Amino acid sequence: MMEAAERRQRVIESFQHLKLDAAVISGLPNVRYLTGFTGSNGLVLLAAGTAILYTDPRYTMQAAQETDCKVQTIPKGSLNAGAVKQIGRKRWKRIGIEGSRITYAAYREMRDGLGQRATLVSTANLVENERMVKSEAEITRIRQSVQTNSRALERALRTITPRTTEAELAGEIEYQMRKLGAEKPSFETIVASGERSALIHAHPTGKVVATDQLLLIDMGAMQDGYASDMTRTLHVGRARPKARKLYKAVLEAQLTAIEAVREGVAASAVDKGARDVLRKHGFERYFVHSTGHGLGLEIHEPPRLGKRDKTRLKAGMAITIEPGAYIEGFGGVRIEDTVVVTKTGCEVLTPTPKELTIIE
Amino acid sequence: MMEAAERRQRVIESFQHLKLDAAVISGLPNVRYLTGFTGSNGLVLLAAGTAILYTDPRYTMQAAQETDCKVQTIPKGSLNAGAVKQIGRKRWKRIGIEGSRITYAAYREMRDGLGQRATLVSTANLVENERMVKSEAEITRIRQSVQTNSRALERALRTITPRTTEAELAGEIEYQMRKLGAEKPSFETIVASGERSALIHAHPTGKVVATDQLLLIDMGAMQDGYASDMTRTLHVGRARPKARKLYKAVLEAQLTAIEAVREGVAASAVDKGARDVLRKHGFERYFVHSTGHGLGLEIHEPPRLGKRDKTRLKAGMAITIEPGAYIEGFGGVRIEDTVVVTKTGCEVLTPTPKELTIIE
Repeated sequence: MMEAAERRQRVIESFQHLKLDAAVISGLPNVRYLTGFTGSNGLVLLAAGTAILYTDPRYTMQAAQETDCKVQTIPKGSLNAGAVKQIGRKRWKRIGIEGSRITYAAYREMRDGLGQRATLVSTANLVENERMVKSEAEITRIRQSVQTNSRALERALRTITPRTTEAELAGEIEYQMRKLGAEKPSFETIVASGERSALIHAHPTGKVVATDQLLLIDMGAMQDGYASDMTRTLHVGRARPKARKLYKAVLEAQLTAIEAVREGVAASAVDKGARDVLRKHGFERYFVHSTGHGLGLEIHEPPRLGKRDKTRLKAGMAITIEPGAYIEGFGGVRIEDTVVVTKTGCEVLTPTPKELTIIE
Repeated sequence: MMEAAERRQRVIESFQHLKLDAAVISGLPNVRYLTGFTGSNGLVLLAAGTAILYTDPRYTMQAAQETDCKVQTIPKGSLNAGAVKQIGRKRWKRIGIEGSRITYAAYREMRDGLGQRATLVSTANLVENERMVKSEAEITRIRQSVQTNSRALERALRTITPRTTEAELAGEIEYQMRKLGAEKPSFETIVASGERSALIHAHPTGKVVATDQLLLIDMGAMQDGYASDMTRTLHVGRARPKARKLYKAVLEAQLTAIEAVREGVAASAVDKGARDVLRKHGFERYFVHSTGHGLGLEIHEPPRLGKRDKTRLKAGMAITIEPGAYIEGFGGVRIEDTVVVTKTGCEVLTPTPKELTIIE
């Protein structure tokens, strides 16, 4: 609760350079970050001396238990109307909104409700910027989520039989996560075997995994509200030289990127590290995504470790490092860890080994 | 594929009364409905004779496999830019956007990109209205999803021991769903015991379920892309008279609402049926949500069976019927089935019994 109040204070301090009198926070992970509220319908009105959580009657009791903010329940219609009323009452003039979180329809509703009384200012990453550097308590939760994730993979791999399908293995992975204390997967678990490993976001199918082929598993847990994210590419049976070559190149790229991580380095420089290695091996054109992303209350948070993100890494950021290469008709390899940036480098949280694991 | 082309044609026909030249569809379930594409980043530009699916390079192969539309891959930046370019080239003037799906930031990006060349018109439920009445093929999938859901509950209940927690039972339910062919739960499974059953959207906790108390389970599967939704309230050990009275009233409300469903009836009339019964029993003030909602590719779709939704039900709509009553400090009861509207009434898809089940 104390932590939430401090977070709100930091966001309010950032109002100054945007000349905001108040802000309406509509992104649910941001609402949770600032209030502790975990419901599916919430809105925060934030200003110096004011923090009101708006929700609907389904969440009256839950909100009272979870937050130290003032809670206002809106019995009918949208929560924006409640915020609009309060803004009018306080005569605030410049109101920040979250342009990438609020829908156009909700924006129109607020603008029409406020009329000439106030101006809406679209802000980007008002709360997300605060969320990039994690507190010790948050890192503890991410670490727990990462450990659950790795243990779940270990346990699920033991259940593979000659008849196990991609979908069954994905189900087993998610079951083990929950048994280990996760609320849910942090995204749809990917289990893609053979040529399907080249489909970067493949849905698991009824295809049997245990025949001679690549097996790509991308999985994450959401535990105590915090995400983990890991990819491992295994091989069932003896690997062909091309698969080994691809694996070796991606692993070298991943280790090189991890080497590049430390406070002060640009996110794009880490991406470049991975990309240069894959170029050297002739695989750069198969690496069609960025090297990683921040994670925390959401599976994808800033910064983005891509070609164009100049964000300087800071100690306490939790990010993924996940280069990959995908060859249509052959298969793909991706290797991904969750790491925490430190002053001098980074701590790799993911304990799962990265040698090419052969399942016999 | 044929079905997707027909769906696009119906949406294009609805452009006429809005005087639209084209529309940009950004809601992912709508993208899937119109193209078959199941990726996490897609946008459809739709006009007479034009259907272009924009996506990013991660999905090039998958999109080619899934859709009969023209696919354009946007290597960098937002997909909107691709649509904006095409709109300019075709000199279309009035472009529909999905006001409740598109973010304000994405709207601004499109508006700035188009400049004076075209007007953006915010539409509501352009595709959702088409989606309300399901095809036979869709009802088959919903039926399958409902059956998986009911079987998963049956199997999971058999695993309860004196030490099973809410979170473990939720995990078991989701595991059984996946084993039965579901991709994932259609929403976060709710398992709430004792007083916690009065928290309408409670997250499962480490609380042990098998002591004398109410046990509310709200669960849904997502199978072959289609949602199911069911709530059952059980009782562990002997139920107190107040719990029995509450259960009886909610069940009567639910059966009354089901009786009221048929083609031509207003959604609000079904809600009124349930509400009147709970009023008769003195529980109306504890019924703080609406009686149900449509479902299909999403767990919540129009219509909403609430006080104010005047939508006339039509044969082929798939909806939930789920009245409840929640008494703080005591507990709550909700009973929910998935039903399909017919000309003369409805078919209750959910096979799970609704007598108050006592777990000893």
